[in-house]
Amino acid sequence: MSLVGKKVMPFKANAYQNGEFLEVTEEDFEGQWSVVVFYPADFTFVCPTELEDLQNEYDALKEMGVEVYSVSTDTHFTHKAWHDNSDTIGKIEFVMVGDPSHTLCENFDVLIEEDGLADRGTFIIDPDGVVQGVEINAGNLGRDSSALVRKIKAAQYVRNNPDEVCPAKWEEGSKTLKPGLDLVGKI
Amino acid sequence: MSLVGKKVMPFKANAYQNGEFLEVTEEDFEGQWSVVVFYPADFTFVCPTELEDLQNEYDALKEMGVEVYSVSTDTHFTHKAWHDNSDTIGKIEFVMVGDPSHTLCENFDVLIEEDGLADRGTFIIDPDGVVQGVEINAGNLGRDSSALVRKIKAAQYVRNNPDEVCPAKWEEGSKTLKPGLDLVGKI
Amino acid sequence: MSLVGKKVMPFKANAYQNGEFLEVTEEDFEGQWSVVVFYPADFTFVCPTELEDLQNEYDALKEMGVEVYSVSTDTHFTHKAWHDNSDTIGKIEFVMVGDPSHTLCENFDVLIEEDGLADRGTFIIDPDGVVQGVEINAGNLGRDSSALVRKIKAAQYVRNNPDEVCPAKWEEGSKTLKPGLDLVGKI
Amino acid sequence: MSLVGKKVMPFKANAYQNGEFLEVTEEDFEGQWSVVVFYPADFTFVCPTELEDLQNEYDALKEMGVEVYSVSTDTHFTHKAWHDNSDTIGKIEFVMVGDPSHTLCENFDVLIEEDGLADRGTFIIDPDGVVQGVEINAGNLGRDSSALVRKIKAAQYVRNNPDEVCPAKWEEGSKTLKPGLDLVGKI
Amino acid sequence: MSLVGKKVMPFKANAYQNGEFLEVTEEDFEGQWSVVVFYPADFTFVCPTELEDLQNEYDALKEMGVEVYSVSTDTHFTHKAWHDNSDTIGKIEFVMVGDPSHTLCENFDVLIEEDGLADRGTFIIDPDGVVQGVEINAGNLGRDSSALVRKIKAAQYVRNNPDEVCPAKWEEGSKTLKPGLDLVGKI
Amino acid sequence: MSLVGKKVMPFKANAYQNGEFLEVTEEDFEGQWSVVVFYPADFTFVCPTELEDLQNEYDALKEMGVEVYSVSTDTHFTHKAWHDNSDTIGKIEFVMVGDPSHTLCENFDVLIEEDGLADRGTFIIDPDGVVQGVEINAGNLGRDSSALVRKIKAAQYVRNNPDEVCPAKWEEGSKTLKPGLDLVGKI
Amino acid sequence: MSLVGKKVMPFKANAYQNGEFLEVTEEDFEGQWSVVVFYPADFTFVCPTELEDLQNEYDALKEMGVEVYSVSTDTHFTHKAWHDNSDTIGKIEFVMVGDPSHTLCENFDVLIEEDGLADRGTFIIDPDGVVQGVEINAGNLGRDSSALVRKIKAAQYVRNNPDEVCPAKWEEGSKTLKPGLDLVGKI
Amino acid sequence: MSLVGKKVMPFKANAYQNGEFLEVTEEDFEGQWSVVVFYPADFTFVCPTELEDLQNEYDALKEMGVEVYSVSTDTHFTHKAWHDNSDTIGKIEFVMVGDPSHTLCENFDVLIEEDGLADRGTFIIDPDGVVQGVEINAGNLGRDSSALVRKIKAAQYVRNNPDEVCPAKWEEGSKTLKPGLDLVGKI
Amino acid sequence: MSLVGKKVMPFKANAYQNGEFLEVTEEDFEGQWSVVVFYPADFTFVCPTELEDLQNEYDALKEMGVEVYSVSTDTHFTHKAWHDNSDTIGKIEFVMVGDPSHTLCENFDVLIEEDGLADRGTFIIDPDGVVQGVEINAGNLGRDSSALVRKIKAAQYVRNNPDEVCPAKWEEGSKTLKPGLDLVGKI
Amino acid sequence: MSLVGKKVMPFKANAYQNGEFLEVTEEDFEGQWSVVVFYPADFTFVCPTELEDLQNEYDALKEMGVEVYSVSTDTHFTHKAWHDNSDTIGKIEFVMVGDPSHTLCENFDVLIEEDGLADRGTFIIDPDGVVQGVEINAGNLGRDSSALVRKIKAAQYVRNNPDEVCPAKWEEGSKTLKPGLDLVGKI
Repeated sequence: MSLVGKKVMPFKANAYQNGEFLEVTEEDFEGQWSVVVFYPADFTFVCPTELEDLQNEYDALKEMGVEVYSVSTDTHFTHKAWHDNSDTIGKIEFVMVGDPSHTLCENFDVLIEEDGLADRGTFIIDPDGVVQGVEINAGNLGRDSSALVRKIKAAQYVRNNPDEVCPAKWEEGSKTLKPGLDLVGKI
Repeated sequence: MSLVGKKVMPFKANAYQNGEFLEVTEEDFEGQWSVVVFYPADFTFVCPTELEDLQNEYDALKEMGVEVYSVSTDTHFTHKAWHDNSDTIGKIEFVMVGDPSHTLCENFDVLIEEDGLADRGTFIIDPDGVVQGVEINAGNLGRDSSALVRKIKAAQYVRNNPDEVCPAKWEEGSKTLKPGLDLVGKI
Repeated sequence: MSLVGKKVMPFKANAYQNGEFLEVTEEDFEGQWSVVVFYPADFTFVCPTELEDLQNEYDALKEMGVEVYSVSTDTHFTHKAWHDNSDTIGKIEFVMVGDPSHTLCENFDVLIEEDGLADRGTFIIDPDGVVQGVEINAGNLGRDSSALVRKIKAAQYVRNNPDEVCPAKWEEGSKTLKPGLDLVGKI
Repeated sequence: MSLVGKKVMPFKANAYQNGEFLEVTEEDFEGQWSVVVFYPADFTFVCPTELEDLQNEYDALKEMGVEVYSVSTDTHFTHKAWHDNSDTIGKIEFVMVGDPSHTLCENFDVLIEEDGLADRGTFIIDPDGVVQGVEINAGNLGRDSSALVRKIKAAQYVRNNPDEVCPAKWEEGSKTLKPGLDLVGKI
Repeated sequence: MSLVGKKVMPFKANAYQNGEFLEVTEEDFEGQWSVVVFYPADFTFVCPTELEDLQNEYDALKEMGVEVYSVSTDTHFTHKAWHDNSDTIGKIEFVMVGDPSHTLCENFDVLIEEDGLADRGTFIIDPDGVVQGVEINAGNLGRDSSALVRKIKAAQYVRNNPDEVCPAKWEEGSKTLKPGLDLVGKI
Repeated sequence: MSLVGKKVMPFKANAYQNGEFLEVTEEDFEGQWSVVVFYPADFTFVCPTELEDLQNEYDALKEMGVEVYSVSTDTHFTHKAWHDNSDTIGKIEFVMVGDPSHTLCENFDVLIEEDGLADRGTFIIDPDGVVQGVEINAGNLGRDSSALVRKIKAAQYVRNNPDEVCPAKWEEGSKTLKPGLDLVGKI
Repeated sequence: MSLVGKKVMPFKANAYQNGEFLEVTEEDFEGQWSVVVFYPADFTFVCPTELEDLQNEYDALKEMGVEVYSVSTDTHFTHKAWHDNSDTIGKIEFVMVGDPSHTLCENFDVLIEEDGLADRGTFIIDPDGVVQGVEINAGNLGRDSSALVRKIKAAQYVRNNPDEVCPAKWEEGSKTLKPGLDLVGKI
Repeated sequence: MSLVGKKVMPFKANAYQNGEFLEVTEEDFEGQWSVVVFYPADFTFVCPTELEDLQNEYDALKEMGVEVYSVSTDTHFTHKAWHDNSDTIGKIEFVMVGDPSHTLCENFDVLIEEDGLADRGTFIIDPDGVVQGVEINAGNLGRDSSALVRKIKAAQYVRNNPDEVCPAKWEEGSKTLKPGLDLVGKI
Repeated sequence: MSLVGKKVMPFKANAYQNGEFLEVTEEDFEGQWSVVVFYPADFTFVCPTELEDLQNEYDALKEMGVEVYSVSTDTHFTHKAWHDNSDTIGKIEFVMVGDPSHTLCENFDVLIEEDGLADRGTFIIDPDGVVQGVEINAGNLGRDSSALVRKIKAAQYVRNNPDEVCPAKWEEGSKTLKPGLDLVGKI
Repeated sequence: MSLVGKKVMPFKANAYQNGEFLEVTEEDFEGQWSVVVFYPADFTFVCPTELEDLQNEYDALKEMGVEVYSVSTDTHFTHKAWHDNSDTIGKIEFVMVGDPSHTLCENFDVLIEEDGLADRGTFIIDPDGVVQGVEINAGNLGRDSSALVRKIKAAQYVRNNPDEVCPAKWEEGSKTLKPGLDLVGKI
């Protein structure tokens, strides 16, 4: 059974955002949409472009009521240092969570035990703290933030319109389906 | 620990394709790229549009050396019936696998036990039978096949060019990165 | 120890009947006679004739106060689709229960685990929810509904006349036996 | 999982037949069709009529290559005594097996533990010693031997014509079905 | 540790006596002396003469306040049939208990598991339901009821005269011993 | 399951006989008939008369090829002392076994744990070391050696004439029964 | 950890003393000094001289407020018989405890399991029921009662003068030591 | 079961003797008589007088072929220091074993766990390394070495004259007993 | 996980200080700074110089509010004797704890089990009874008390100035650091 | 039992040194002296001064044949970044080991589980890979490298002069002690 449809397990972690250190818990996920983005390690190769790509969508996501959390097994001290020293990472405005105790990685089932690093997993979490989407890629594949935005919009639409469902490749404003007995076997 | 980087576990299943019944096993995944697409049930709402969307990319995927397997807990008999009766599904040319014994759903960790139905999980598998990508959505969210195609292309590129990695939002032909000590902390 | 004489275990399942989806539980078995008929799969060979044969007795069974439930591991969506598309099945008026989670099949001990399909089991259940008769055939043998009707009539007669028992081959109106000490060893 | 499709478990029992005591084992079931008929107790009420009914079909069954075994938890001594003293039972020519150790009742899962008596179970066993049909009735319901004969004939026909299956209510000589892909969803 | 000195364990059994069926429990043993006589099977060889021998003492035992219970793993139906059909057994007036569930045989530790039959055990039980004497013989040895009567008389005498003990070969009216310190080492 | 029909378990014990100390093991039971007579304690009340009674039959038993072993949890030293000091016991010629380690009492299941004393158990053992008869009495009841002699004679007769069985109250030279199918239910 | 300093465990035993049978329990040890003397068996070799030696000190011990208990696995009946028959033992006035159930031997850890006999253990017990001295000798070594008396006197002295301790070879009236910091390393 | 009759368990310890450090193991006990004397602690009160008392017998014991080992949980360094600083202890010529690891104390079952100190136990060990005598006193009771010497002499006599046993209070040269059947109950 | 940051576990021990014996428990550590210094054994080589070195700092430590406890598995009796006899040790004024039961050594994880001796461990404990520093050296390495004093001073400074931290090689009065976000990555 | 005297457990880790990434295993510790210095996290407060302090001794340590390994749960990527960005850390020439999998922290028992960070532990390891010294400080206490150098010198001296031991506060060239029996209790 996957994590989809399950509530996020409790955790407490230190994070860096906008020049401040802050504490993050599963309670922060209540009442907002959240995206949790795991990546292996600070100061490595694919990661910065992935995080930059995510930052480019951050304003749009914030407008959609979505908070973004990037997570690696590095500390929040290292996150700050990376932010201070990398032009690319220095632009990041979302929450950079440190998980040196591996708690979050294990809760989201993305810890590569022998390395102590995270898989490249992305999780969409609804305002009830329930996982609505999971995506995990092998270590050398980057992710595409625009696909992520599309998925969150679809998830938000369905949540606001519980009688309708989104067919494949749905874009904002496109037609959705209302499930009903007469549709069974008719599409 | 996620399924990414793990080999597909053994299974044996009956499937329907192009007017024929056939048997599928994990050995079919050796030597080709494979996509395994789980969905909850035949004759339901989002599913046909998702599968139709996938069919639209099938020629492209075949050219890329990718075989496509859709899986639900329905039987291959029901798959045939759906194919016979639905205009949308009738167009499908890829392999429709029946999993009434829940073996594949459990192997890929997408069985919703209380319903006996699959989560909407998509798995990219390389020619060694190793999972390279996982995507799972809540039941009422459709998937986007074009994002899937992009991911497979990137995975194939990285496999063929083991010294390079793909930054985020990579498109075929775009620049990749060669990891090296001097890149650390420099992006 | 067989299921005969035991109460039906709790379950909750989705079903299709007369163009409607409905939920069925073990509580529906209280206060009426019930027949539960398992078969392997929709859209297969022997099954439709067996179900048609059962439908032919349905009016008679309803008059006797008996509700009929057919069960396979297919979903209620597939049942509806089969009903919509098959002339034979389209005539069916009784309850077609979907058991993709295998709950009912396991409760009645008729799940063929390696296939995820049901044995061809028929169960007669009295108004207390207690099993009065069991019949299970190998996969390629059809059942005879008129023998089923005879058995239910006998069961109902014995329930209404607790002092009498039915000798073999009893038909409605034929003589029954009143058990007593003087009969021991005298027949 | 029911006993249908499973091989009979090993046993050794004493029996009475035609004025002789004999030993019966599961090896006797190899190479012939067998019917095993359990009943609660000698010298009781429904039982004699059931056994008489079975005796009436015995010649027909023998011609079909079927041996009949009745079993209760009584001893073979009691079977002989019942045979000697009852007009009805005195006519019986088939094998009357004693099961005071409960071995057979437990092997066929028909022991009512608190009573030490058997359920009214009937088992059809093919020449490989594999169960092809099971029927169990509550204690006060008699069985109908002619339905049994019909079922065995169907089972024999299917065994001899492995490509065909018997639809419901099949009678000897009636039309059977040849399963094939084109029949799926077409009946 | 033997059963001697232990209370009879609870049981419930059907029995035949004097043309009636009755239920027997361990409570029947309270307030009377009881003899429980196990034998292998009705309609066999040594058994009838043993039971006849016991019947010959039955009047004497009744006068002594002793009830007699014979037990085999046969049913009470079979007991009645044996009683009806055997001249020897037909004379029996004591209680013939059926133990097809093996409960009594196991309580008194006389079940031969592989046969499902009882050892030839005799148990003397006092009015407190406590075993005072046990005798068990190999299957082909008969028992002697007059020795049994002598033992019960001695047991009754000792119970009524708790200060005295019975030396070997004691017969009713013969001298008994009063245990006391001065007797130690003096006989 | 009782000890009847079971082989005596291995043991090694010190004993007193005819002014000598000797060692006794289960191997002494091979090739002769044996009687093992347990009693609670030397220098007590019923015991001497029981043992005297047994001594009176000792010559007859020896002629029948039977060795006699009396056993208590006293030592062989105490047995000698009792033999030396008691007129009654001084006559004893059979083997007086000491069992202070409780090994024999536990092997024959006659140890009263809380007292460390034996029940009054008598065991007849055939030349294969197999128990043929068991008799156990409450502590204050004496045993009758002549009944014992009769039982051994019957056991010896049956062993020498394996086709015959001894009906109840059999005395040497009286008629026995040959078991056969025609006797079933005829006595 | 040895028994020294531990309280005697509960027990109940029969004993012989001065022509009477009595019951002894651990409660008898409260409020008096006790000596418990185990020996292997009545009617054996070293034992009588040891017990006679003990009897010679009995008056002195009684005056010191000490009760003496000899214990073997023999019964109290055997103790009486030995007392009656042996000139040496006949002089004994202390309590002779029977331990056929091995309870005391196990409580004092002196049971030789394979023999069912006691080691030659002597235990000094203070008025709180606490063991103050243990002595155990191999089977063929006798004990010296005068050494025992000296030890009890020393134990009594120390109990009455809790501030002093007894140096080695202390005799009644000799100087004792008062422990104190200044004595450390000074003797 | 006590240690008497058991072989000493393996150990390795450091000891002090005559101005030297040496290693002692259980192998040193083979081929000589040994006395092992436990005491609580160096530099305490009763202990020095006990050890001095033992030293006084050391020449005699050596002549008898006996080696003496004193043991406490102190180290051999502390033993040397005590020997250097105490007039009393300075005279000691036997082996002073250090047991800070508690190995010997646990092997001889004399460790007072909560204190980490030894009971005052004395053990006589024969040339086979088998314990022949045990004596343990409460903490404030001294031991008497002359009683120890008497016991060892008796043990040596019995070992050299295996046919005889030593009655109580035996002194060197006094009469011993030859065990035999005729002595039983005669002393 | 090391002991640093953990509370000292409960214990009770006897100790020697200034010509007195006293009891020490973990409660003595509350409300004062404590140093616990383990060493292998009294009367050995490195130990006295280490303890002397510690004594030389004792006045300074007392002024700093620090109590010092030296611990070995020797008894407090041996500690006194060592103190009495060694010029070096005779100067010691701090608490010398005896741990013959190994309780403290095990609580602080410094017991060398096979020797029953302590590692050379030093523990700094704050007034809450929490370990602030651990140092353990191999057996032949001495410790340096002045480094210990520096560490305690630093620990006390940090406790009194919770906002500051001590950089390496901090000496009393030297500059400390105030941790803050702006220092991250800036030193 | 502490780690002192134990061999380092196997591990494999990535490290950064002098502009290169390298792999470190426990085999690197064979044949050289090693110091392993754990600290909580890169880019934090006390740590840089501690590491700088260590760097200041690095040339001396290298001359002494000692390699230095600093370890935190940060990755080697982060170590490189810290080295690149911090003036203090940029001077470091020893090996900076990354332990994001916590393997080394757990092997050396310094993982603070709830934080996923290391205690401030320092370990001296000899050329056999055996731990000779352990020092662990609370999180806000810095370490003093010169004390570390002194300890290693002493350890090396003792290793090269196995007959001598180092008293407390030993400095290179100062007098050492040769252990011997005559020194016991003499210092």
